[in-house]
Order: sequence, then C-alpha cells, then structure tokens
Amino acid sequence: MLNLIQYIQHLIAITEEEASLIHTFFEERTYQKNSFFLTEGRVCKQVGFVTQGLLRYYINHEGEEKAYAFAQEGSFVCNYESFLVQASSSKTIQALEDTHMLTISYDSLQQFYKKIKAGERFGRLIAEQLYVQSLKDITSFYTDPPEIRYNRFIKNHSNLQQRLSQYHIASYVGVKPQSLSRIRKRMTKLP
Amino acid sequence: MLNLIQYIQHLIAITEEEASLIHTFFEERTYQKNSFFLTEGRVCKQVGFVTQGLLRYYINHEGEEKAYAFAQEGSFVCNYESFLVQASSSKTIQALEDTHMLTISYDSLQQFYKKIKAGERFGRLIAEQLYVQSLKDITSFYTDPPEIRYNRFIKNHSNLQQRLSQYHIASYVGVKPQSLSRIRKRMTKLP
Repeated sequence: MLNLIQYIQHLIAITEEEASLIHTFFEERTYQKNSFFLTEGRVCKQVGFVTQGLLRYYINHEGEEKAYAFAQEGSFVCNYESFLVQASSSKTIQALEDTHMLTISYDSLQQFYKKIKAGERFGRLIAEQLYVQSLKDITSFYTDPPEIRYNRFIKNHSNLQQRLSQYHIASYVGVKPQSLSRIRKRMTKLP
Repeated sequence: MLNLIQYIQHLIAITEEEASLIHTFFEERTYQKNSFFLTEGRVCKQVGFVTQGLLRYYINHEGEEKAYAFAQEGSFVCNYESFLVQASSSKTIQALEDTHMLTISYDSLQQFYKKIKAGERFGRLIAEQLYVQSLKDITSFYTDPPEIRYNRFIKNHSNLQQRLSQYHIASYVGVKPQSLSRIRKRMTKLP
C-alpha cells in the first residue's frame, strides 16, 4: 500500500492514524489480462488505484471499440459518470496486462471523505485533475489532426508505446491501424 | 447574492456567518453583449457565477470558432484548465447577452476552501459535476451523429434554443448552419 499512501501524501497531509484507517478502506484485487474492471451496462461500484498493470477505457460504437483513455501504475481507474450517481455505465474498462490494484467501494469512499480531515480536499484535487485532462481531450478532438493527436499520445504516454498494440494506439488517435503506420513513417522522415 | 448562497446551500450546509463571509469573497461584474470573460492567450483569473445572461465557450481553430459549451443563469463560468494552474488559456469565453455575474479570484477561492467548513466538499462536488459533463461530451463526440448531438443539445439546453443564433447552435453540434437547417427539417417531419 506504500504507493497509494505516498500518492495521497503528495496532495494532502495525513496523520499516521489516518494512514492506517485508509488501509482499511481499500482491498487488493487482481484483474487478469483482457478481463474487465467495468463493462458497459453495469454500474461502476469502485475506484481502483493501479499498483501494477495497464487498462484501457473504451466506448463501443456500432461494434467498433473506440479507446479514449489509458490508465497505468499510479493512476486511479473509475468511470465517474457511472460511479458518482451509481448508474449503468456507457463505457468499458479492460485490463490490457495482468493488473494489480487497490479498490475502494462507493460507501468506503464516503467514509474516506468523512473521516480523513483533508479527504474532501483530496477528492477535489483529483476531480479537478481529471476534469482538466478531459478538457484537454475535448480540445484535441476539435482541433487536432491525427498527426498531432499521435504526437500528443507519445508526449503524454511515452512509456506506453512499447506496452500498447498498434490497434489500441490507432483507436485512441482515431484512425485505422494502417493510417497510423503511414503517420509514423512520415514522422520518422521529418528532419 | 441570494441565488449564489442558495446554490451553495443546495450542495453543502453553511452557517449565517459563513454566508456573510462568502459575500466578501465575490464581486459583482457586468459583461456587455459580445465582450469577453476570457480570451485565448490570457490567464483565467476568476470563476464567475452567472446571475443573468448567457456565454459561450469556444476554441479558435484555423480561423473558425468552435463552440463547445454554453453557460447561463445559475452556472459557474471558468476555464479550469487555465485557472487551476494560472496558465494561458487555449479557449475563449464570450458573453452572448448582457451578462451579470459574481466573480471570485483565485486567491479568494483558496480562502473559501480554507475558511468555509465544507468548502472543499463544495469544490469537490462542483469539479465532479463538471468532469462528468465533460465525459458525456467526449462520448458524444465519439459516437453521436449530428442529429443525435442536436437532440442532446435540445434536451440539455431546451431554454436556450430561442436565445442562441443558428450559427452558435450549429457550431456546437459540429455542422454548418445549412446542415443544421436540414437536420431540423428532417426532425419536424418525423412522426
């Protein structure tokens, strides 16, 4: 649990007692490669903190899986849209590698906000980070051609290039895998 | 200020002393029709609460203004992406009508979080709402054809149809004004 506590301490001050209490709120879980953290139509009942592994978020659109985000070590995994109101999810979250995480249920998270002195502050900072990331994604959809979206992917997820298949990267960039190959070729030719 | 206090009380409990303190954090401002709350390249230095009026958020892309959100009475106005890190904005926020609002500066907002007991909780709930709205927008970009995006606009902003020009609605839906006319015609023919 060391990583999670460190992650939390990076944003808020917590006492040793609070750190112990936080331990009791989380459970260890493992998702095997290709298994699902959340499937479309189900309610997202937990938030996960990835200690090892990789997941993708995608939308199923007319049989096509459109990846819109990835989560790796040190990040939280959740479809807030479903989780916050405990409504069925329009997105799917799948493990792309064997993934270990610490999960917290909806009820335990409310306890976290209640019992940890700066818990609400932590929740605010996380929600703000997620929201800003999401705003950047929206800008990118509106304005960026595939080349720039691919560049942005490399910049934001440089360490993921080796871990993701061309299929998943192409899906995120919003092009067919063949088009991604062409983009990559053009980019390597640039001075 | 009644509306703002009511809005806050809808989400958190505040004492009378806190309500008075909150008054001191906000300033009244008026933006004339077509004037700017925030322009691209500038830092967003405040969050506004609209008491009367209407604004649009847009991205300037190769000379084309792409509207991606609107704000009206009872909503907060801010480009969090710029505000939270006090960095220059890639978006513009413009008043489409004479707009009255109550604004809070970055520093005063930190005081709000510090001095109001449930202030952080309020901040968390607002950031979560904004994030979820933004997630819904992303889904819509990925999956919805213009007809559905127009339907979604009508559903979410039914009271804005009369207040927005066809140009602004078309920009939000992601089509040319002529295409929007065709969509509307097709829709009125449906049983």
